[in-house]
Amino acid sequence: MSFDILQEKIIALKNPTVAGLDPLPDYVPKHIMDRHLALKGETLEAAADAYFEFNRGLIDALCDIVPAVKPQSAYYELLGPAGVAALAKTAAYAKAKGLYVIADVKRNDIGSTAEAYSAAYLGTVKIGGSELAPFDFDAATINGYLGTDGIAPFLETCRRRNKAVFVLVKTSNPSSAELQDLQVGERKLYEAAGDLIEALARDTAGKYGYTCAGAVVGATYPEELKSLRRRLKNTFFLVPGYGAQGGGAGDVAGAFDENGRGAVINSSRAIICAWKKTGRDGLDFAEAARAEAIKMRGALRECVDFR
Amino acid sequence: MSFDILQEKIIALKNPTVAGLDPLPDYVPKHIMDRHLALKGETLEAAADAYFEFNRGLIDALCDIVPAVKPQSAYYELLGPAGVAALAKTAAYAKAKGLYVIADVKRNDIGSTAEAYSAAYLGTVKIGGSELAPFDFDAATINGYLGTDGIAPFLETCRRRNKAVFVLVKTSNPSSAELQDLQVGERKLYEAAGDLIEALARDTAGKYGYTCAGAVVGATYPEELKSLRRRLKNTFFLVPGYGAQGGGAGDVAGAFDENGRGAVINSSRAIICAWKKTGRDGLDFAEAARAEAIKMRGALRECVDFR
Repeated sequence: MSFDILQEKIIALKNPTVAGLDPLPDYVPKHIMDRHLALKGETLEAAADAYFEFNRGLIDALCDIVPAVKPQSAYYELLGPAGVAALAKTAAYAKAKGLYVIADVKRNDIGSTAEAYSAAYLGTVKIGGSELAPFDFDAATINGYLGTDGIAPFLETCRRRNKAVFVLVKTSNPSSAELQDLQVGERKLYEAAGDLIEALARDTAGKYGYTCAGAVVGATYPEELKSLRRRLKNTFFLVPGYGAQGGGAGDVAGAFDENGRGAVINSSRAIICAWKKTGRDGLDFAEAARAEAIKMRGALRECVDFR
Repeated sequence: MSFDILQEKIIALKNPTVAGLDPLPDYVPKHIMDRHLALKGETLEAAADAYFEFNRGLIDALCDIVPAVKPQSAYYELLGPAGVAALAKTAAYAKAKGLYVIADVKRNDIGSTAEAYSAAYLGTVKIGGSELAPFDFDAATINGYLGTDGIAPFLETCRRRNKAVFVLVKTSNPSSAELQDLQVGERKLYEAAGDLIEALARDTAGKYGYTCAGAVVGATYPEELKSLRRRLKNTFFLVPGYGAQGGGAGDVAGAFDENGRGAVINSSRAIICAWKKTGRDGLDFAEAARAEAIKMRGALRECVDFR
């Protein structure tokens, strides 16, 4: 089971951090961006090359500290097809370095369209007589608003190819309450969404008890996080909102089960933009990211025992 | 206002059809796919070239019949970065032919990530001193599960660049009821979602009364469609589910206002795979698509008066 692989990496490194590789043109140190713009002009292709060089440096600096990385697709799509090519290269490089790679794509659709998304990010497509894997991520985030029809095709791919998804349940943003906290009978909507995904994937629990259908639950709602941990005993959590969005190590402690398992905590800007605070114009971006990831690991270890 | 442009195209052609450009490798006539595989081998790049040739033929055959096309991004992402490049080329070609082009991407996220998505599909990004438009679609579909934080950044881009979005409200699939029909106080969840987007975009109504925030409402729920039309007087509808998914012209009539305005009806497979029924191995794929689009236009004109 895919989350077994992730859990074992977490135990080996005693660190449940996933580093968000979420570049914006401004986040790439100027010396890297300028070199690529000089080579290819002020083009999306040049910026995409700069993204990849930045990511490669980050991955090299982080791969023995964090078990996983999570590129946010939006920032790559922002550079058009060249950006998506940089995303694919980043994923392949991170996998080669032993990292568990999560595509933060929040895809959602139904029927053959959902099948196409799941084949794109987690599966394969048949071209002529060849079976090709377009991106081959380990896991992807999805949005479950469309119900079972929008989730089941992804779970099908997960079962077949030993992959996993994280379904949005309770997101970290201030207005997540507008729809997600609406009361539906005895439950809130986000609880209903959580119950649905736990039920859909019940048959896939791995050796640590977690199914292939995880949940996204924000660090910025620690009470909800704790109560969802109790409610969804077989659901692995991806927890955004740590660091830049305001969640601290104490806030995310409730995401873990009694053995310190069952969750990964994402941090993006705090790690990849750590160089902005060192006053060295990003010449030390990799070391700065590494130092920040070590600091976060220390803070998490103080709150949770990762056996 | 972006929906004014679409509405005027609909009035000019007396046709509210949007043709879904949703290719799968199997949907491309064999003579096209085989030629590209012979050129570039059994690769994602070859399949992407075949997609584009197929789309170009469809667009040429449809551009004086339908006002709009809607490529579903999943099928392009299925071919990795090369597929996304074919999507960008398809969008540019369709725009050059005078079509209104909707990106069916169902993107969703918050804060700077939502800004990146909206800049990618509807806006621009600054690279060095240049302002570049990565895809430059006229409109995009989005998923509103994250609330205002996930919708507002898109509306910001729409206001600035005269673009539009369609937010998922009531989707066409059988299990859409699981979450969307849950009762929240006096309303169903999908009604709450509809009310939210109508309120968020109120200040953007154009000359036909419609704001830049449209809604996706499935043809397979004609009663809900009719009651949402009454409820959301300023919200333009994108209606999937016609044809292959079972909705007929009578089912979608309720999507239009008393002047026959305010909605586009999507058909994908029935149009782009029409060649599969003519027994000519797809040599006539463009004519077959055109004939099917003319038939659909006729059926819609019988039910609604498009002034």
